[in-house]
Amino acid sequence: MQFHQFFSPSVQHTLDVVGIFVFAISGALLAVRKNFDVFGIAVLAEVTALGGGLIRDVIIGAVPPAAFTDLGYFVTPLLAALLVFFLHPHVERIQVGVNVFDAAGLGLFCVTGTTKAYDYGLGLTASACLGLATAVGGGVLRDVLANETPSLLRWDRDLYAVPAIVGATMVVLCIRYDALTPLTSGFAVITAFVLRLLAMRFHWRAPRAWNRRSTVREE
Amino acid sequence: MQFHQFFSPSVQHTLDVVGIFVFAISGALLAVRKNFDVFGIAVLAEVTALGGGLIRDVIIGAVPPAAFTDLGYFVTPLLAALLVFFLHPHVERIQVGVNVFDAAGLGLFCVTGTTKAYDYGLGLTASACLGLATAVGGGVLRDVLANETPSLLRWDRDLYAVPAIVGATMVVLCIRYDALTPLTSGFAVITAFVLRLLAMRFHWRAPRAWNRRSTVREE
Amino acid sequence: MQFHQFFSPSVQHTLDVVGIFVFAISGALLAVRKNFDVFGIAVLAEVTALGGGLIRDVIIGAVPPAAFTDLGYFVTPLLAALLVFFLHPHVERIQVGVNVFDAAGLGLFCVTGTTKAYDYGLGLTASACLGLATAVGGGVLRDVLANETPSLLRWDRDLYAVPAIVGATMVVLCIRYDALTPLTSGFAVITAFVLRLLAMRFHWRAPRAWNRRSTVREE
Repeated sequence: MQFHQFFSPSVQHTLDVVGIFVFAISGALLAVRKNFDVFGIAVLAEVTALGGGLIRDVIIGAVPPAAFTDLGYFVTPLLAALLVFFLHPHVERIQVGVNVFDAAGLGLFCVTGTTKAYDYGLGLTASACLGLATAVGGGVLRDVLANETPSLLRWDRDLYAVPAIVGATMVVLCIRYDALTPLTSGFAVITAFVLRLLAMRFHWRAPRAWNRRSTVREE
Repeated sequence: MQFHQFFSPSVQHTLDVVGIFVFAISGALLAVRKNFDVFGIAVLAEVTALGGGLIRDVIIGAVPPAAFTDLGYFVTPLLAALLVFFLHPHVERIQVGVNVFDAAGLGLFCVTGTTKAYDYGLGLTASACLGLATAVGGGVLRDVLANETPSLLRWDRDLYAVPAIVGATMVVLCIRYDALTPLTSGFAVITAFVLRLLAMRFHWRAPRAWNRRSTVREE
Repeated sequence: MQFHQFFSPSVQHTLDVVGIFVFAISGALLAVRKNFDVFGIAVLAEVTALGGGLIRDVIIGAVPPAAFTDLGYFVTPLLAALLVFFLHPHVERIQVGVNVFDAAGLGLFCVTGTTKAYDYGLGLTASACLGLATAVGGGVLRDVLANETPSLLRWDRDLYAVPAIVGATMVVLCIRYDALTPLTSGFAVITAFVLRLLAMRFHWRAPRAWNRRSTVREE
């Protein structure tokens, strides 16, 4: 039995497509802000949505990656790009909604990424790492392509990695104690999702280095 | 029969080396403009020339990638780097010539990238995507390493992705309707090549998002 | 017999962990300078320490990469990140010591990277390239993620690639002439290490392009 097909295939696929869609929206919106043209918007939407899973699949040897074998995974970001292209002031106005969906994508991908890596024979710690990479990798590629410092790494952004780390850790603990069920998987998704929502609501941030003396300009 | 060996091997290899050479020139010239040293010039030439095919090969599971199994593919960018190192004002003066060759490389790689991906069992849409990635991936890596916004994504650059998309699409349509021959392949190469030349000649550009309100500084 | 297990496994492993640790320190210090939070410090430490080997393993098809199969390789950068987080002014004060260890990591990784690639069936030139990529890849990823121009490519940095190229070339010459022993491997490590120390001591730099006319601002 493969854990990453834990939910029924159709439920899993629907959840994946929703996560891909909201990640694509965030990539397309950054592309609009960076003044890219319509193809730049589409490329950034694709990379943001599929990049995390692509990194995971290449590392665990699951080639060709799911991003290239499922047409729905490929078309979804294009739809998101079109939507942003025509309606972006409205999409921006509903930024709160986008953030909520993005948090849902984060929670979902950290769980499915972890279970897929474990299915491919990786250890528990490595699986959790790849779960984290699945959840945040697309956003990092998005920021690198847009020539911005990855918001994942910046201290002045609300916690993003921690919810995904918590979700991935819950999954590997469940695997370790033989308790991974659809229920516990779903609970891990929801925990990561809610933690991210709380981090945004209360502007939780992680500390910077102690005794920090700025040796480069603040940015 | 493998489509990506459609042309006779020696013709195919010669075309590949020409494409690699002109892409390497564009990487080396950017390195000179960025003030890199001779090793930086060589690295950027290699990455620009081989990066697109490398990304494709890693994704389709064709490892070790062609870039590491064919000595000619590796040495060619070094020759381009040396040429630019010693003669770059002259190379810059013939920028028009470089652009023409770069357009030829774009046309060639979008076609061979698509057919190689299809040979490795990917679907038609995925093959076309990987053809596009083969053609433009090296240039994106070049710009990321040089810490510039990828010119592929910028609205103020002449169309670059579209000719490659057209060429790759022609190839998958030919495959779909069982009409891929050296003649039709060559026609796809030439179509992409000519479209790129026209885009440069008439400064064709793609639109930006509708109702764009600049939310970051123009760049 | 696999060359990359040439040293006794425990010696090899200890050397690897030392190299990983010092590379991680350099990543963590850059993260502090860039004002990243504690997770950004950890991510940059991991990427810097493991990125070069990861690139090599994905390219030669050694998946899952060693970085994900050896817990020690994963935990070491976290310890380095913690150390820098709490003690970074002290770590910076001993920058000279960090540079010496980084040079040791460079020498070690160019040799082990080359032998591992050769073990996986790559040719001599390709193996040397991948040895170089193993040694310098992590630092390039570090700089790209931190949104800086890779110091590998900049002319105003002391020679970094050359010592690794020399070490990797010595290894492939030894393989070619059937003379690769622990002694000659160790000699290659030490040669690269000492060359890098000398480059730092005497500020050896590589030339920029001849007749360079600055066409962009100096940076």
